[in-house]
Amino acid sequence: MSDRYLDFANSGIGGWLTGSLGLPRPAPLQRRADAGGGVVGPLLLGGYGEGRMAAVLARLAAANAQVVHADWSPDVRYGGLVFDASACRDAASVQPLYRFFHQAVRSVVEHGRIVVIGTPPDAMADAEGEAIQRGLEGFVRSLAKEARRSIGVHMGYVDAGAEDAAQTTLAFLLSPRSAYVTGQPIRVSAPVAAAPEALGHVGQRVLVTGASQGIGEAIIRLFAAEGAQVTALDLPGAQVRLTYLAAEIGVEPLLLDITAPDAAETLLADAKSRGGYDVVVHNAGVTRDRTLARMEPREWDSVMAVNLTAPLTITQVLVASGGLRANGRVVAVSSLSGIAGNAGQTNYALSKAGWIGAVRRLAPQLAAQGITINAVAPGFIETQMTAAIPFAIREAGRRMNSMGQGGQPVDVAETIAWLAEPQSGGVNGQVVRVCGQSLLGA
Amino acid sequence: MSDRYLDFANSGIGGWLTGSLGLPRPAPLQRRADAGGGVVGPLLLGGYGEGRMAAVLARLAAANAQVVHADWSPDVRYGGLVFDASACRDAASVQPLYRFFHQAVRSVVEHGRIVVIGTPPDAMADAEGEAIQRGLEGFVRSLAKEARRSIGVHMGYVDAGAEDAAQTTLAFLLSPRSAYVTGQPIRVSAPVAAAPEALGHVGQRVLVTGASQGIGEAIIRLFAAEGAQVTALDLPGAQVRLTYLAAEIGVEPLLLDITAPDAAETLLADAKSRGGYDVVVHNAGVTRDRTLARMEPREWDSVMAVNLTAPLTITQVLVASGGLRANGRVVAVSSLSGIAGNAGQTNYALSKAGWIGAVRRLAPQLAAQGITINAVAPGFIETQMTAAIPFAIREAGRRMNSMGQGGQPVDVAETIAWLAEPQSGGVNGQVVRVCGQSLLGA
Repeated sequence: MSDRYLDFANSGIGGWLTGSLGLPRPAPLQRRADAGGGVVGPLLLGGYGEGRMAAVLARLAAANAQVVHADWSPDVRYGGLVFDASACRDAASVQPLYRFFHQAVRSVVEHGRIVVIGTPPDAMADAEGEAIQRGLEGFVRSLAKEARRSIGVHMGYVDAGAEDAAQTTLAFLLSPRSAYVTGQPIRVSAPVAAAPEALGHVGQRVLVTGASQGIGEAIIRLFAAEGAQVTALDLPGAQVRLTYLAAEIGVEPLLLDITAPDAAETLLADAKSRGGYDVVVHNAGVTRDRTLARMEPREWDSVMAVNLTAPLTITQVLVASGGLRANGRVVAVSSLSGIAGNAGQTNYALSKAGWIGAVRRLAPQLAAQGITINAVAPGFIETQMTAAIPFAIREAGRRMNSMGQGGQPVDVAETIAWLAEPQSGGVNGQVVRVCGQSLLGA
Repeated sequence: MSDRYLDFANSGIGGWLTGSLGLPRPAPLQRRADAGGGVVGPLLLGGYGEGRMAAVLARLAAANAQVVHADWSPDVRYGGLVFDASACRDAASVQPLYRFFHQAVRSVVEHGRIVVIGTPPDAMADAEGEAIQRGLEGFVRSLAKEARRSIGVHMGYVDAGAEDAAQTTLAFLLSPRSAYVTGQPIRVSAPVAAAPEALGHVGQRVLVTGASQGIGEAIIRLFAAEGAQVTALDLPGAQVRLTYLAAEIGVEPLLLDITAPDAAETLLADAKSRGGYDVVVHNAGVTRDRTLARMEPREWDSVMAVNLTAPLTITQVLVASGGLRANGRVVAVSSLSGIAGNAGQTNYALSKAGWIGAVRRLAPQLAAQGITINAVAPGFIETQMTAAIPFAIREAGRRMNSMGQGGQPVDVAETIAWLAEPQSGGVNGQVVRVCGQSLLGA
C-alpha cells in the first residue's frame, strides 16, 4: 500500500514544500531489500566496567566485515553505537553512558542503529541496581524519540552467561531488518535448547496461518526466500489466491479453517507427516470492530475464536503431542490494540491482550521442551486493512510514531524471522512491538 | 491553571460552536469538591459464576447509602456498573461479560464508573485462564476509550482471599476521587499488615517532599484536610512560600535539600521524634530538559540525584532504621515519561523509569516489614510547569487522552491518598497512572 505523503515529502518539489512549511519529512526506512540484511558499520563500542559483550560484538562485526571502534573520533560517521551498560548499578556508573552518547549521538548516520545493553533489572543485586537498569529503558525510549533520521534505538537486557545467545538479537537490532522496531526492551536469557551451527532458516519447517495476504503473505515470502519449507494455511475461501501465491513463491498451500473442531488434529497429523514443525506462526486474525453497545454476539464470538481460542488450542495440541520439534518456535501475532486498547475493539483487544497472557504463561512450560513462544505486536502496518481506514485517522496512525510513517508487512515478517532463527532460543516469553515506537501504549 | 478550551466548549456559545464544527467537547470532570468523595450509585452488579465480590460491594453500597441492582432495567440510569469476571477462564465464560456491558453500558450516567473485577492472570490454573484474565485488561482499556462522558473504566485484579482488602480500592475507583484515573489494571493482594478499624487519614503522620507548589501543594492540602499531621518539606529557597502555605493549611514546614549528604539522617531523626512516619510521599522532582547531545553534565546529574538517588536513599534509611511505622506507606511520583520515554528527557525518563524498578524490587522487601511502596505516574497535569509548555504541544497533551483534558494536581493527590489509606495494604508494588488514559505509553 502506498504512503503518498512519504513519497511526496521525499520528492524534489515535495521536499522543498514540506521544508518551507515546517511539515515533517520522514525519511523512508531502509530495509533488507534496500540495504541488505547485514550488520551496519562501522560500530562504536562503549561501556562501563567489565564489557560482557565485546567478544560477541567483535565476532558479529567480523562476520559482517565491519570495523569496531573503541574510541570516538569526530571524523568518523558511525553506522551504529553500542554501549554496554550491563555493569551499571548506581547513578555514578551511568555517567559514562551519558558522556558516551552526549559525545557520539550526532555521529550516527541516517538509518543507523543505537543499542544499549543492560542486565535484566530483576537480576541485579539491590534496589538501586534494579532502579538503574530499569531506568535505562526510560533512557532508551527517550533517545529513540529524539534520534530521528530513521535511527533505531534498542535496549537489550542480556542475562549473565547468555552473551553468546544474544548474537542473533544483536544482529537483528543492528541491521536494516529491524527498520520498524525501536525504543523498547528485549531480554535474552540462556537458550531453551542447543542450536545447530548453521545460521538462518534453511530447511526449517514453517507453518504460517492467514498466509494468503497482507502480513501473512510477507511472512511466507520471507521464510521461503530464506530456504525454509513453508506450509501456507488459509481459509478454504482463499483457495484461488493462496494456490496462485503458493505456486509463485514455492510454498505448500493448506486450506483449513482453524476454528473447525478438528483443526488442531488435522494440523498435528500434517506436522507429524513432516517430522514436526520447527516454526508455527499464528498470524490469522479477524477484526469485527463495533462499539460494545452495538456489537453483535457473533462479532464477539468470531473474534475470540479465530484470534485466541483456536490458535491457543492448536499450540497446546501440537506441543503436547510432538507436533513441534526440539528447538521449535511459536510466534503469535498480537497487536498494539491488545497493549493499549482501542475504541471499537473490545473484542479484538481482549483476544490480542490474551496472547500477552498466554505467552507469559506458556514460555516457561514450552522452554522445558526446548521450545520458545513469543508474540509480535504490530502497530500501523500498511496493508489493505489499513488502506480502508478513513484518511484523517490513517494519517494520524501513520505519523504518530518515531519513524513518522507506517510499517510494511515485511517489517513484521523480519521480526518473526529473527525470533524463529535456530540461534534465537534465548528470546522467550517476549512481546515485541513492530510499530516504529508508536505513541500509543499502555 | 485554566484550560480555556474546556471552559469555552462548555459555555453556551462555545458548546454551540464546538458542536457545529464537530470539535471535541470534553465534559469537565467531577471531583470530590464537586460531587463528594463517596461511591457513586445506584450500582448494577453482574458477574460470571461464583461472585467473590458481592459481599464487599454490598457493604460499600450500604456505607454510602447506595442501592445495588442485580438485574438491568431500561428505566434506571446507573452511577456505576461492576462486573465480577474473576471466575472467567475461557471464551465461553466471558460471553456473560460481553452481554452484560452490551446491554448496560449506555445506561451509565455522565461521570459514572465501570469496574471489571478479575483474578490476577498469574494466579489462574492454566494458559487459557491466564490469557482470558490478561485479555480483560485489553477489554477494559478499549472500553475506557469508548466510554466518553467522563466515565472511568477500571480493572481490579483481586487475589483470592483478598476481597476485603479491595474495599478501599473499589471505593476509590467508584468515586469522584478517581476522576482522572482510567483504563488500567490495579492488583489487590493480601494486606501487608493488619489495619485499624477506623477509615481515613486522621492522625497519620505524613511526610511530603516538594510540598510548596503544584502537585506537592495539592497533596499536603488533601492530607491536612483529612486530618493527617503533615510535614511539608521543600528546599530552603522555598522558605517564604512554604511558611505561608504551612500556616494557611496547618502543616509543619521543613526546609531541607534532600540531596544534602545528611538529608536521610535528618529525616530519620525527624521521623523518630514523631514516633515514625506513617506515610512518605516522594514528590520532589526536577526537569532539566535538553536533547542528549546538548545536555550538560550538571543537568544529567541533578535530575538523577533529586529524582532517584536521594529519595531512594531516604527510603532505605527510613525503612532500615525504624523511621516508618508498621502499616506504613511509601509513594513515589514517577511519570509518564518514565513509562513511555520523551524526547529531551533522557535524564528525567531514566530517573522516573528507575522508580518503576525500585518499586518492583522494594515491594516484597517492605511488605515483610508491613509497609507498602507504590508509584503514581502523572500524565498531563495542569500546573505552572505545564502552563509554560508552548501552546500547540500543551493542547495536544491536554486532548490526547480519554478524558479530553488535562488533570489537576488534586487528581494525583487523591490517588496517593487512596494508596496511603490504612486499609490499602493490599495494594503494593504498583505503578498507577494518573493520566485520563493518555494515548502515550510503552
